[in-house]
Amino acid sequence: MAIFRGIHGMLKANTRGESMAKQIFDYQNGDEMKLAVLIKSAEVRVAKNGKKFIAFNFQDASGHISAKFWDATDADIEQFKPGEVVRLAGKRELYQGNPQVKIYNMRLATQEEGNDPAKYVESAPESADDMGEELNDFIFQITNANWNRIVRKLLGDHKQAFLTYPAAKALHHAFAGGLAFHTLSILRLAKSVAEQYSSVNRSLLYTGAILHDLGKTMELSGPVSTDYTIEGNLIGHIVLVDEAIVQVAGQLKIDIHGEDMMMLRHMVLAHHGLLEYGSPVRPELLEAQILHNLDELDAEINMMTGAYQHTEPGTFTERLFGMDNRRFYRPQNGQTYPDPK
Amino acid sequence: MAIFRGIHGMLKANTRGESMAKQIFDYQNGDEMKLAVLIKSAEVRVAKNGKKFIAFNFQDASGHISAKFWDATDADIEQFKPGEVVRLAGKRELYQGNPQVKIYNMRLATQEEGNDPAKYVESAPESADDMGEELNDFIFQITNANWNRIVRKLLGDHKQAFLTYPAAKALHHAFAGGLAFHTLSILRLAKSVAEQYSSVNRSLLYTGAILHDLGKTMELSGPVSTDYTIEGNLIGHIVLVDEAIVQVAGQLKIDIHGEDMMMLRHMVLAHHGLLEYGSPVRPELLEAQILHNLDELDAEINMMTGAYQHTEPGTFTERLFGMDNRRFYRPQNGQTYPDPK
Amino acid sequence: MAIFRGIHGMLKANTRGESMAKQIFDYQNGDEMKLAVLIKSAEVRVAKNGKKFIAFNFQDASGHISAKFWDATDADIEQFKPGEVVRLAGKRELYQGNPQVKIYNMRLATQEEGNDPAKYVESAPESADDMGEELNDFIFQITNANWNRIVRKLLGDHKQAFLTYPAAKALHHAFAGGLAFHTLSILRLAKSVAEQYSSVNRSLLYTGAILHDLGKTMELSGPVSTDYTIEGNLIGHIVLVDEAIVQVAGQLKIDIHGEDMMMLRHMVLAHHGLLEYGSPVRPELLEAQILHNLDELDAEINMMTGAYQHTEPGTFTERLFGMDNRRFYRPQNGQTYPDPK
Amino acid sequence: MAIFRGIHGMLKANTRGESMAKQIFDYQNGDEMKLAVLIKSAEVRVAKNGKKFIAFNFQDASGHISAKFWDATDADIEQFKPGEVVRLAGKRELYQGNPQVKIYNMRLATQEEGNDPAKYVESAPESADDMGEELNDFIFQITNANWNRIVRKLLGDHKQAFLTYPAAKALHHAFAGGLAFHTLSILRLAKSVAEQYSSVNRSLLYTGAILHDLGKTMELSGPVSTDYTIEGNLIGHIVLVDEAIVQVAGQLKIDIHGEDMMMLRHMVLAHHGLLEYGSPVRPELLEAQILHNLDELDAEINMMTGAYQHTEPGTFTERLFGMDNRRFYRPQNGQTYPDPK
Amino acid sequence: MAIFRGIHGMLKANTRGESMAKQIFDYQNGDEMKLAVLIKSAEVRVAKNGKKFIAFNFQDASGHISAKFWDATDADIEQFKPGEVVRLAGKRELYQGNPQVKIYNMRLATQEEGNDPAKYVESAPESADDMGEELNDFIFQITNANWNRIVRKLLGDHKQAFLTYPAAKALHHAFAGGLAFHTLSILRLAKSVAEQYSSVNRSLLYTGAILHDLGKTMELSGPVSTDYTIEGNLIGHIVLVDEAIVQVAGQLKIDIHGEDMMMLRHMVLAHHGLLEYGSPVRPELLEAQILHNLDELDAEINMMTGAYQHTEPGTFTERLFGMDNRRFYRPQNGQTYPDPK
Amino acid sequence: MAIFRGIHGMLKANTRGESMAKQIFDYQNGDEMKLAVLIKSAEVRVAKNGKKFIAFNFQDASGHISAKFWDATDADIEQFKPGEVVRLAGKRELYQGNPQVKIYNMRLATQEEGNDPAKYVESAPESADDMGEELNDFIFQITNANWNRIVRKLLGDHKQAFLTYPAAKALHHAFAGGLAFHTLSILRLAKSVAEQYSSVNRSLLYTGAILHDLGKTMELSGPVSTDYTIEGNLIGHIVLVDEAIVQVAGQLKIDIHGEDMMMLRHMVLAHHGLLEYGSPVRPELLEAQILHNLDELDAEINMMTGAYQHTEPGTFTERLFGMDNRRFYRPQNGQTYPDPK
Repeated sequence: MAIFRGIHGMLKANTRGESMAKQIFDYQNGDEMKLAVLIKSAEVRVAKNGKKFIAFNFQDASGHISAKFWDATDADIEQFKPGEVVRLAGKRELYQGNPQVKIYNMRLATQEEGNDPAKYVESAPESADDMGEELNDFIFQITNANWNRIVRKLLGDHKQAFLTYPAAKALHHAFAGGLAFHTLSILRLAKSVAEQYSSVNRSLLYTGAILHDLGKTMELSGPVSTDYTIEGNLIGHIVLVDEAIVQVAGQLKIDIHGEDMMMLRHMVLAHHGLLEYGSPVRPELLEAQILHNLDELDAEINMMTGAYQHTEPGTFTERLFGMDNRRFYRPQNGQTYPDPK
Repeated sequence: MAIFRGIHGMLKANTRGESMAKQIFDYQNGDEMKLAVLIKSAEVRVAKNGKKFIAFNFQDASGHISAKFWDATDADIEQFKPGEVVRLAGKRELYQGNPQVKIYNMRLATQEEGNDPAKYVESAPESADDMGEELNDFIFQITNANWNRIVRKLLGDHKQAFLTYPAAKALHHAFAGGLAFHTLSILRLAKSVAEQYSSVNRSLLYTGAILHDLGKTMELSGPVSTDYTIEGNLIGHIVLVDEAIVQVAGQLKIDIHGEDMMMLRHMVLAHHGLLEYGSPVRPELLEAQILHNLDELDAEINMMTGAYQHTEPGTFTERLFGMDNRRFYRPQNGQTYPDPK
Repeated sequence: MAIFRGIHGMLKANTRGESMAKQIFDYQNGDEMKLAVLIKSAEVRVAKNGKKFIAFNFQDASGHISAKFWDATDADIEQFKPGEVVRLAGKRELYQGNPQVKIYNMRLATQEEGNDPAKYVESAPESADDMGEELNDFIFQITNANWNRIVRKLLGDHKQAFLTYPAAKALHHAFAGGLAFHTLSILRLAKSVAEQYSSVNRSLLYTGAILHDLGKTMELSGPVSTDYTIEGNLIGHIVLVDEAIVQVAGQLKIDIHGEDMMMLRHMVLAHHGLLEYGSPVRPELLEAQILHNLDELDAEINMMTGAYQHTEPGTFTERLFGMDNRRFYRPQNGQTYPDPK
Repeated sequence: MAIFRGIHGMLKANTRGESMAKQIFDYQNGDEMKLAVLIKSAEVRVAKNGKKFIAFNFQDASGHISAKFWDATDADIEQFKPGEVVRLAGKRELYQGNPQVKIYNMRLATQEEGNDPAKYVESAPESADDMGEELNDFIFQITNANWNRIVRKLLGDHKQAFLTYPAAKALHHAFAGGLAFHTLSILRLAKSVAEQYSSVNRSLLYTGAILHDLGKTMELSGPVSTDYTIEGNLIGHIVLVDEAIVQVAGQLKIDIHGEDMMMLRHMVLAHHGLLEYGSPVRPELLEAQILHNLDELDAEINMMTGAYQHTEPGTFTERLFGMDNRRFYRPQNGQTYPDPK
Repeated sequence: MAIFRGIHGMLKANTRGESMAKQIFDYQNGDEMKLAVLIKSAEVRVAKNGKKFIAFNFQDASGHISAKFWDATDADIEQFKPGEVVRLAGKRELYQGNPQVKIYNMRLATQEEGNDPAKYVESAPESADDMGEELNDFIFQITNANWNRIVRKLLGDHKQAFLTYPAAKALHHAFAGGLAFHTLSILRLAKSVAEQYSSVNRSLLYTGAILHDLGKTMELSGPVSTDYTIEGNLIGHIVLVDEAIVQVAGQLKIDIHGEDMMMLRHMVLAHHGLLEYGSPVRPELLEAQILHNLDELDAEINMMTGAYQHTEPGTFTERLFGMDNRRFYRPQNGQTYPDPK
Repeated sequence: MAIFRGIHGMLKANTRGESMAKQIFDYQNGDEMKLAVLIKSAEVRVAKNGKKFIAFNFQDASGHISAKFWDATDADIEQFKPGEVVRLAGKRELYQGNPQVKIYNMRLATQEEGNDPAKYVESAPESADDMGEELNDFIFQITNANWNRIVRKLLGDHKQAFLTYPAAKALHHAFAGGLAFHTLSILRLAKSVAEQYSSVNRSLLYTGAILHDLGKTMELSGPVSTDYTIEGNLIGHIVLVDEAIVQVAGQLKIDIHGEDMMMLRHMVLAHHGLLEYGSPVRPELLEAQILHNLDELDAEINMMTGAYQHTEPGTFTERLFGMDNRRFYRPQNGQTYPDPK
């Protein structure tokens, strides 16, 4: 039985096509804006004139943008919290290379206007249905029975979170469904690698790829206003997924000390590649090393292409924290990227 | 009920006093030696004249010493394996500052002569009985019920290994009972610290100290001819003890996601202090930081005082790998160390 | 004769109990404040509206708090300098997680009101009398005559500074009397260690502990508005105390090249543990290594417990610079720390 | 016109199938050996008995193996030089985990016996013909005219070396044809990546992949007894290929300062990823980053699978220098690797 | 024929002596200022009151100074761009240790008033004529014909840029003519070194010194409002000068693979000394190592003496980014530096 | 009065010219040797056949060379100690690129034959007389009275050691008189720098250069069979010279806390440049930074040119430990180095 049957509609595709209303990145610099957005973060600060203001980060399915709310009253601060949907009027401007909104006015959206936060988060470019189906295909190819059963049990237990969580708070795939999308992207790369190099144990590589970041569902608080949980800080997603494997193996009466289980656990424990990056052991299996490389490759491509989307041809992106603060050049000619938003 | 009741005799005190026979370090340089020793390691190499020889490391309860067996036949190589007790005749010499045995002849000890390897390993300076009793006292002071039950269950399950295993293959406390002795030394330091700094959660610090290295019983192969297990390589003792905690919590119906359990797991996961040293998270609890410092302090004192024992006053020890290859000076005067052996 | 006889009253206990007046941390967020405080630091900046303001850091014996003084005139800037005691009226607020004062008005305290800066600095939790007495006990146990005489002479020469200086400008024990309190804390730990490990040369460890940071009295400017001296920058406290030992040895006709003097100098020179931390040599004596570890342990406990005091249970402290920018979790339950101020 | 037309037979397939004679790895430990091999390296040393011996590394198409030649005369040293083919009789033995030959006797092969060194080197698992054809297909897909012309001109100029050189002296793909095989493996990975991520400029990625290591043909001395050239040491393959691009662009009247040429040069200059690894600039183009990752991935898979081939199931490989001295575990079960030789 | 004949007047000496008008550093703190300056940089920001302001950096031949322009209109932003000369009225003030201008009013300079940006840049302390003549003397001493011809050709091709560009955007010798002045300073040091150490190949050292930074003329945009070019980012000045050498060698029919050409290229490629600093190879020639050391020595002296000029005796300079953020002490007495401006 | 008057003959020039006897490097590979040499080091080892041998390092004024003495008896080991002069007969050979002596026979030199070790050490290329005279000239130019007096007193106290000690045990200037020669080389460079950069305080730079390594006379055991003293290990030459300055200042009644004395002490304390290299503070004076650079420059040139002397043109030197294990290329043409010995 396929794990992901019946997830239809779990992750609504919040893409432009679905909605007639204009979204954040439908506006150009200088345009007057009038739309509903989600408050992603709201930080209260004191201006140099002694008055308070709120530094907002708004988002909808098209992306996110910052704004400053001057002379904020205590009532403003009280009502405009992260997770709220607001009706916003303002003007899009460009300062220091980054777009922001000059706020004219804003108020909380009413229930009638539709204030469901889930509709305003960025999300993966593929639907949960499609991703679930493709994942089923990969799981079907895991021929080791223990690995197959553990994958099915764990994905079954965390189905909803796995399909809706981001893969990280900020660095890469930081959008709803990002965890599943990142996992799937690695699986696709893994398939190519397994076909090209015949020594690779395909079942092991697929199992490791599917489970490697499942701990993110425990490390992160959820798809809206994502933050680290206390457990995420004190234990970390790498050990959290290992714990889940140990528990599930107990429920399924699988010997945790068998060679295949040691190999599986090694795959998830070693996937950060270096001790400095939080793996308690470095890869010591061919497939563990490959998983680490593909994880890195997909995350990096996601960070770079994401930055290119907001960069004019012939210029450099902003510095990317996850890429050692490098800037990347978007060529003038011969490019195959979509136009910057 | 005390965990360590009934362990009497488990770890026989292999100290000089028990035996009338002379031991390795009863001999001085130049002395003719005649005694029974355990083969700790035996490496076959080819001499530059093309013939094979065996590089031995012999040990008994007084310490260990190296030797070379020239022109080894295949029969010699076959019978003189690590873990065997042999009758040895030779001469103690000093080359390049280190003592070694010039072998006259050697043969396997017969059963009548007593060939029990356990009698020839170095062991902790305190008896298993005494250590077990003192550990019981510390466990008694753990007032959090979950922690107390988990400690009792885990120590109960691994009683024998915990009292007989070394704390490491080579670096520090590398002798039978070293794991328990190292644990107890940290607990004694922890007691002083908890008395001096009133904010310290004594139960947490004790629990962490007792469990922090329990995974060594899974990472290492045992007290004789100690090596790393495959599980030890692929998973490591830090995650192995975390797995044991998760399993035992399941058996005892303790919620693994409660704050106290997160704190306990953090204690063992973080005890190496730095990611580079294999901890998947750095200490983020006062007690976790203290445990790391005390673990390091006790291990370092053990390495330094061990080296001083083989160093003449007014000279430097050999370079200590575990101390960043530093040499330590043993003063001529005012010292309080015992004479070098 | 005891060094610290007659220091009675040198370091007045500035604790809450002594004074009927309310102190900074007697006020809660939202309270109107009216009290006398010391200006710890005062930085003149230009607001974005082009006018000047002063960023103050006020302190009294209960701790320190920041504040902004808007639209500062040249007269304001002239009179409100670090080291001045002022009468302050304002309101305690909380922005971005940190308490600060919204200033209503402030003026210099008159002599009648009591404008002695020494009354407004945070100070060690033990009185100078008590600390002096306990130090005498430790000195009494230094059995090497040269070390004993040097300790007595140096502490005698720097008695006042030693008992009133902080141990650092900002990192740890940054309060009046912090140097003596930090020294004493290390001595108490040293006593436990010397009792547990019989090889330790107790006299040497105590002598090193007492002198290791004495150079701070030359490196730092004093207990009020502490800064580094030029000598502190160009030479550093490690070499400054070594210089003092060399000079005093000369006065006492002690041979600086004797083994005991080399050992003592090595203790203070090596106490930072690593060359990167400013020690010109790494520890090469058992006692030097232990001193380094205990110095670190006490400093770290002080930084962590200090931060816990301003942290709500169930949350993390701010990032601690001296702890590699880590945040520490203050548990909800089972804690033994006092309530946060 | 395809570059690689007419290269037929340039790289003879030296595989087992072609020859009826037994090769090095057709013998098991303990077997008497009698075969022709190539001297890969020959180092003269002095044994501890004062006599000279030669430490050989022999090779044929099946792999390489070491051996010691005792009591070497000046005549032996003179004639048995790297690059010579010799007739060897001896016995295969296993010491310290590595196979070696115990030499009974050896002499230079005569011309009649066939002493062509090229027949005794390990070589890529695919024929030069096949590789050339597949490369042509990739070149065909480079749609930027400048890049296409430069690739054709450079490969045309270095055709023979490109198809016969190894990719490195020792680390990875260190066999005849290794450079072309490594290049092709990256191209195949690049194809999968370009299909999966639509933003990738396929022409640029292919061009960079083909040229990135072409400088190896100038840095290394050739496929037999490979060593670094002086130019390889003083300038390095990264700048050597850049120089070749600059020269060829001049010949083809292509403006070296056009954006496409800057991008191409950046691809090859940045392909080591980090300055520490010898790239004068870090990747600042999406495709440059991907090229670096795929280069690393293919090299690492080659090193790991190569080591697995000489490792028994259930044990670890030797430490791999190019993988940060890690050892890799070859599982007992579920493996898909061929049997170890 | 001398390269630098006929450059007379190319770099006008913009020193105080030439002009009767007061310059930036002729004013003291508190002085009313009235003068023409060049806009070096102009960054538009939003003040906390929501209005825009411009953060200016003004410069003339005496140095540079910052200023804030409050409540900037779109017209202000449009006209006050980097590279424009403006008439400025304001007051010199000192905040946070650094001088800045409080702007009263400013307007673009008219053509009659003289708005040639080149007159307002800081420049080398020696005239282009003098520097060119001294460079000719050094070139005359390069006895290797290939090196001599390449130097003459390259300097001839880039004469104007070489004499007018700065040596860096900000770190050291960041003034017009800085590149030539830095080159000449190294040559003078090189001459002393070559005289003192007779093994040094003087021709090689001079050639390397002259060419090592010539790539800066391609990496940087020019002497006014200097920034990095795209080519500078993607390829870097080290490889850009290597490219220029390769091209010129082709034009002059010099064999690029001769030993002398490998040595010359190695000189420029290795001059950053470490791979981490962007050199693709580390120095492996005596002269390459010396060039690296002298390059560093001259750059560091320039950074330190530049900072001393704005530092009061008895205090420390600001932290110098190029000197690992160290501050340097300017002594009270015995100094030989000019008074601070 | 000049310090170095009357040192005539202290350091006899042991150069070839003085002696009619052949020296080590007068022999070519293959030559039969017959000469007197000094035993620089003698390490007893055990050969793989179980017998002892001595690994010698012989030296005379022309350099040093290694040799192995097989089948050494206890009498051999007893008499052939470091520091003895022996009559040696053997043959010069070349193995693995390094020259060594094949020993035919050797015996202790008699008193009549001349067994003064001082005659067989390598020594500086200039005589003590000449160096002393030039040093006097430099001291004469130190215009600060305190610095001048301290230099005179310290050099006066350590005159003999200063002129005969090496500058290091092995790395650079490791020959008799090396300390003075290295000091003088730095002073000559310092003179050039002070002339080129007018801000440099010449007196300070000279004083620092003269004293910076004076602590080597306490850190090292002497010019023959040089090793580190215990004081050298535990305190280090950097602090040892600081101690000497402090003591001498006391004797001369110079205030150690005056600015000039702080500056002088900073010069010597900071001269290693980095904390990692053992300086307790980093340079924070212009002259301290320059001293560090010149110290490094002269030491590096000495290491490189020393290695070139034993390297054939067109090949690379051995790896130089003090140059990060780099090898340096000795060009075929255009070189100005003397022929290799």
